[in-house]
Amino acid sequence: MLYALVLAGGNGTRLWPYSRHALPKQFLCVDNGRSMLQVTVARTLAIIPPERVYIVTGAAHAQHVAAQLPEVPLENILVEPAPRGTAPCIGLAALQIRRRDPEAVLAVMSSDRLVQHAQDFCDALVVAERLADAGQIVTFGIQPTGPQVGYGYIQVGAALEQHPTVSAHAIAAFTEKPSAARAGEFVASGRYLWNAGICVSRADVLLTELANHRPELAASLDAIASCLEAEEQPGSWHATWSGLEPVAIDVAVLEHTRRGVVLTGDFGWGDVGDWASLAQCLPRDAQRNVVVGAHLGVDTADSLIFGAGRTVTTLGVADLIIIDTPDVLLVCPRERAQDVKQLVSQLAGHYTHIL
Amino acid sequence: MLYALVLAGGNGTRLWPYSRHALPKQFLCVDNGRSMLQVTVARTLAIIPPERVYIVTGAAHAQHVAAQLPEVPLENILVEPAPRGTAPCIGLAALQIRRRDPEAVLAVMSSDRLVQHAQDFCDALVVAERLADAGQIVTFGIQPTGPQVGYGYIQVGAALEQHPTVSAHAIAAFTEKPSAARAGEFVASGRYLWNAGICVSRADVLLTELANHRPELAASLDAIASCLEAEEQPGSWHATWSGLEPVAIDVAVLEHTRRGVVLTGDFGWGDVGDWASLAQCLPRDAQRNVVVGAHLGVDTADSLIFGAGRTVTTLGVADLIIIDTPDVLLVCPRERAQDVKQLVSQLAGHYTHIL
Repeated sequence: MLYALVLAGGNGTRLWPYSRHALPKQFLCVDNGRSMLQVTVARTLAIIPPERVYIVTGAAHAQHVAAQLPEVPLENILVEPAPRGTAPCIGLAALQIRRRDPEAVLAVMSSDRLVQHAQDFCDALVVAERLADAGQIVTFGIQPTGPQVGYGYIQVGAALEQHPTVSAHAIAAFTEKPSAARAGEFVASGRYLWNAGICVSRADVLLTELANHRPELAASLDAIASCLEAEEQPGSWHATWSGLEPVAIDVAVLEHTRRGVVLTGDFGWGDVGDWASLAQCLPRDAQRNVVVGAHLGVDTADSLIFGAGRTVTTLGVADLIIIDTPDVLLVCPRERAQDVKQLVSQLAGHYTHIL
Repeated sequence: MLYALVLAGGNGTRLWPYSRHALPKQFLCVDNGRSMLQVTVARTLAIIPPERVYIVTGAAHAQHVAAQLPEVPLENILVEPAPRGTAPCIGLAALQIRRRDPEAVLAVMSSDRLVQHAQDFCDALVVAERLADAGQIVTFGIQPTGPQVGYGYIQVGAALEQHPTVSAHAIAAFTEKPSAARAGEFVASGRYLWNAGICVSRADVLLTELANHRPELAASLDAIASCLEAEEQPGSWHATWSGLEPVAIDVAVLEHTRRGVVLTGDFGWGDVGDWASLAQCLPRDAQRNVVVGAHLGVDTADSLIFGAGRTVTTLGVADLIIIDTPDVLLVCPRERAQDVKQLVSQLAGHYTHIL
């Protein structure tokens, strides 16, 4: 049986000022009034019923998750007391789901990625479930469109399976955030894929591999799970949690396991890590502008205009990002979209009311 | 006796969206909470008492004028039923003021020009008053800072008088809005000044010259004045007014009269005809930005940021104009400031709520 485990713990400062500490990007409306979290869950509901959908999020956002996903049972919303990377989250969720269903297969995915070809994605999940059921740990790889330095890269090994919209290969190696030069070599070689941050595995296989490669972390998670099972006083496990090594599942397990398989397909995947990459995923007008809200442009091209009720007017602008919110306005060129994070860090000193 | 006649009839669409049809630029706060109209009147009050200050404005704005200038008697606020250029306005005001004071000297000025050196300006008005009293029609000329095509140019003739901060010359010729090439020649020659749109003249001299050069207009204005004097039913003269030829005082009188004199001085004069020229008149920060309101900029230079309560954040922008108002946002490069008028005209079809 396939379970979805949706990670919704990020802060998404690079989509500021639309995303805020109080409302990270996974909760933002980007698709006809639906948030990325809602779109992520709706996509999986085609093959996974809501009672097998789990969400991991921070305490500050649990109510948002519940409000946005009324179809998901409340007990499936798992709250992490403090951010500790993806490995502890996934490990603890795997323990809880394995208790419910020892044969469970988890499809772990982020809540803030765009997947435009939902059918192909679900077809790939079905293939991945079968491979995972047979003991593999399946990651999803994306054909790179350029030498992005912010991504993880998967070196493709021997071909395993070929399906109409998806193919499976062994994994030769992982490389997290390479230099620009190395990323260029990777893309030129044609033997590397972007790591989409999706992982499909049996819960018990994942926990065994975690115990093999991060025994201390696995032991702590076991203790926490026992704590939760015994239903002692709420929060009795929080101190243990806060002492965990913060580590990503890629580093803790995927880079070491011999069970790794990578599935590739054209899912219309997008990272949406900043405004420029979000713009690349949204429909454009004749002047290649992405416009959300009321806009009147004269000689305006290749720009992202994201309104919040007011009319945005532009005259003679190109390659510009304009993000309009009720209390803050952001204007920056597309090529500086990655640096919004830097701007937000400067706000931390004096402008905490608009963070 | 010197009278101020302040023209406050413009619509100022080039300062949109801060200026609107309902609140043209002369009423906007630009100087520590005071509007350009208030600043214009306050400047003249140093040498002209409020009971000798007259304002001409449109019906839609008469209440604004009265509210902004409580010291000016209500009967001094003259309302034009429809815009007909400056010559009919000035002619009718001259008729009414001459009736009150046959020796009156009028100092006609716009309400939407910046004059940063008020003392030098008032000194020049005193010189102009004396020349006007002797029968001259005195215009103010500004040393050009570049080949602006939107201005009127005055060719300087023989030197007449030299004072510490102002000099008087005969006028050789007027040229309204020359081509860029001609404007360049004018500036290079050193013999041309910008026409500041200020005119100081005895009321009776101005009316005589109007009768000489625009006899039909002068006759119609006489009829209207008689109508007003007879205090027939209100508005009985409006149809006559609406039938008047729309013409500027420069074209109707100044370009033809032999009584013309031009006074030059450094008044810190600014046209404030668009956002870029307004920015040139306001104080700048270390990165040469003009900022009104809350702003946080990273790598931001040579820009005008005009806020309206929200925090405007900019990252990696230069030479940009950002005008933020409660219902409309405008973003355009400085070099396109003149074209805001064009944008506003495009709004007329569909976006009348934000005009």
